[in-house]
Amino acid sequence: MQVKVDDLKQVTLQVLQRSGYPSDEADTILKVLMYAQLRGNNQGVVKLIGAGMPRDKSCQPISVLRETKLSALLNGGRNSGMVVLTYAMKLAIQKASEHGIGLVGTNNTNSSTGAIGFYASEIAKAGYIGLVFSGSGEYMAMYGSYEPIFGTNPLAYGIPTTGDPIVFDMATAAIARFGIVEAKTAGRLIPEGVAYDNSGQFTTDPAAALGGAISTFGGYKGAALALLVEVLTHALVSTSPDNEGHKTDWGNLILVLDPELLVDGNTFKQRVFNLTKQLKAAKKLPDVSEIMMPGERGDVHLRKVIQSGSLEIEDQLWLALQVAAS
Amino acid sequence: MQVKVDDLKQVTLQVLQRSGYPSDEADTILKVLMYAQLRGNNQGVVKLIGAGMPRDKSCQPISVLRETKLSALLNGGRNSGMVVLTYAMKLAIQKASEHGIGLVGTNNTNSSTGAIGFYASEIAKAGYIGLVFSGSGEYMAMYGSYEPIFGTNPLAYGIPTTGDPIVFDMATAAIARFGIVEAKTAGRLIPEGVAYDNSGQFTTDPAAALGGAISTFGGYKGAALALLVEVLTHALVSTSPDNEGHKTDWGNLILVLDPELLVDGNTFKQRVFNLTKQLKAAKKLPDVSEIMMPGERGDVHLRKVIQSGSLEIEDQLWLALQVAAS
Repeated sequence: MQVKVDDLKQVTLQVLQRSGYPSDEADTILKVLMYAQLRGNNQGVVKLIGAGMPRDKSCQPISVLRETKLSALLNGGRNSGMVVLTYAMKLAIQKASEHGIGLVGTNNTNSSTGAIGFYASEIAKAGYIGLVFSGSGEYMAMYGSYEPIFGTNPLAYGIPTTGDPIVFDMATAAIARFGIVEAKTAGRLIPEGVAYDNSGQFTTDPAAALGGAISTFGGYKGAALALLVEVLTHALVSTSPDNEGHKTDWGNLILVLDPELLVDGNTFKQRVFNLTKQLKAAKKLPDVSEIMMPGERGDVHLRKVIQSGSLEIEDQLWLALQVAAS
Repeated sequence: MQVKVDDLKQVTLQVLQRSGYPSDEADTILKVLMYAQLRGNNQGVVKLIGAGMPRDKSCQPISVLRETKLSALLNGGRNSGMVVLTYAMKLAIQKASEHGIGLVGTNNTNSSTGAIGFYASEIAKAGYIGLVFSGSGEYMAMYGSYEPIFGTNPLAYGIPTTGDPIVFDMATAAIARFGIVEAKTAGRLIPEGVAYDNSGQFTTDPAAALGGAISTFGGYKGAALALLVEVLTHALVSTSPDNEGHKTDWGNLILVLDPELLVDGNTFKQRVFNLTKQLKAAKKLPDVSEIMMPGERGDVHLRKVIQSGSLEIEDQLWLALQVAAS
């Protein structure tokens, strides 16, 4: 059904308040969820239904474990990943604004960070190049294996231009874990070749895939990128494995670079904008009507939503949100 | 045929001297070429035959265009990409050793940089995390297009461990341009789905592919990574397009991060080593005899070569090298 954006925001805020978040944290989480939801990305308000994202009652203030003028490692204190990564992003931008580069890692958060394109987008809007890496539980296998060890290990980048920033957000997995959960709920099969069952056979059955492992994307190259994200979001930021080496918390890493370190910032932005124009105008493959830039589909979706003031939400999801809010 | 490593090095040095390189530059280029050749990577001595890599007679000393304590942009002065990127790598490591992070870009080089895993490997051996990005001419199309705009846009990373560093080097292209050139020379077809002819149809004919465009790897995700590398190796490092916007030089970017910014360095290295062990011991897919880490095939090749003191070189290549050396 069509739901007004304002109504969706209001109901979402109510759910967040009922989930135990004080208003500043609720506002932060709302921004991250709306970034995804209004772009048609599945990292949106669906996170609030079912088990949802209750605030950890024993959470502690975010604290600094290690810091230099360029860098910080933050203990998330079991706060929401969205709250902690928003804090980390602001700190990394501040360090980059003072010294040209900011590197901030986080551990000990209590939930996923949502669509990490949000943080990359904020960095790019501030005029910087942003790289964001996010770890998660054990869902994905190394190339050649079907044992889940990696998270789905997304990475995102944001690049400022004289027009809209270029923002891209991708899992290094062949399919998002949430896509498998969605397929199971809807009684659909998953595509071939993206996940293994627990005997190492490719499966299209989402239940078997959830009991097995997701494959990395793009063959051995995708697996090598997944490994890089794994190292940057666990070994480097000191997440806490249990006694058997299993993950107990999420880790994240943000790198902010000021293009001014190497080039005049406006020249850089203009060049990237020109490259975008060149790519958009390039010769199209026979079955392609428009060449889309990374992240552009989400931006197109967002513009339509803003223009109409409303967006399509599945009936069941909207109902579940209202129940959670009441 | 089997060639002694010492003989190969000697002949390679002779070719480099005949190509106009003073001995310090020849030594640098030799290291980069041997890194690839002894690992069975096709970025080795084959670069020296045919047109080869003559030193630009009008080249100028490498100069600094912009510098901060953390960063530098270097004008390569039309020197060899291998000489310039080796210089950039050392400068980036020095800055990281003083401040925790080093970011060095280069433009105006006269040849490719060779296997960029070399530079990532040197950074990791020095105890740092290295990211290396390398631009090139117009060979690869954006997702949805068949017009060559991107380079094949490789990226590499190096990660130190308590054992061997993890080093990985990949093109964001579905096939290396050199793989197409090799297939054409050998009269072989190229794989399906990796390159377009000049009308936008997939082709397995290497000649048609060279007149068309290479595809990015891994669908739209690979294309998004190719775009990131394009921005980092052209817009950010100020390569010089001609009046029609076509590239006239290569650009490169090196980022060096000291893990100590966020964690004790030895703890980091131990954790990564443990992760490697965990991945190697993970459950194998039915048709897999060993799980290989990124870059491990090259390391295995290297160990065999070191043990035997010789390596397999195609007869024609060895002959051509000796001709070039004489």
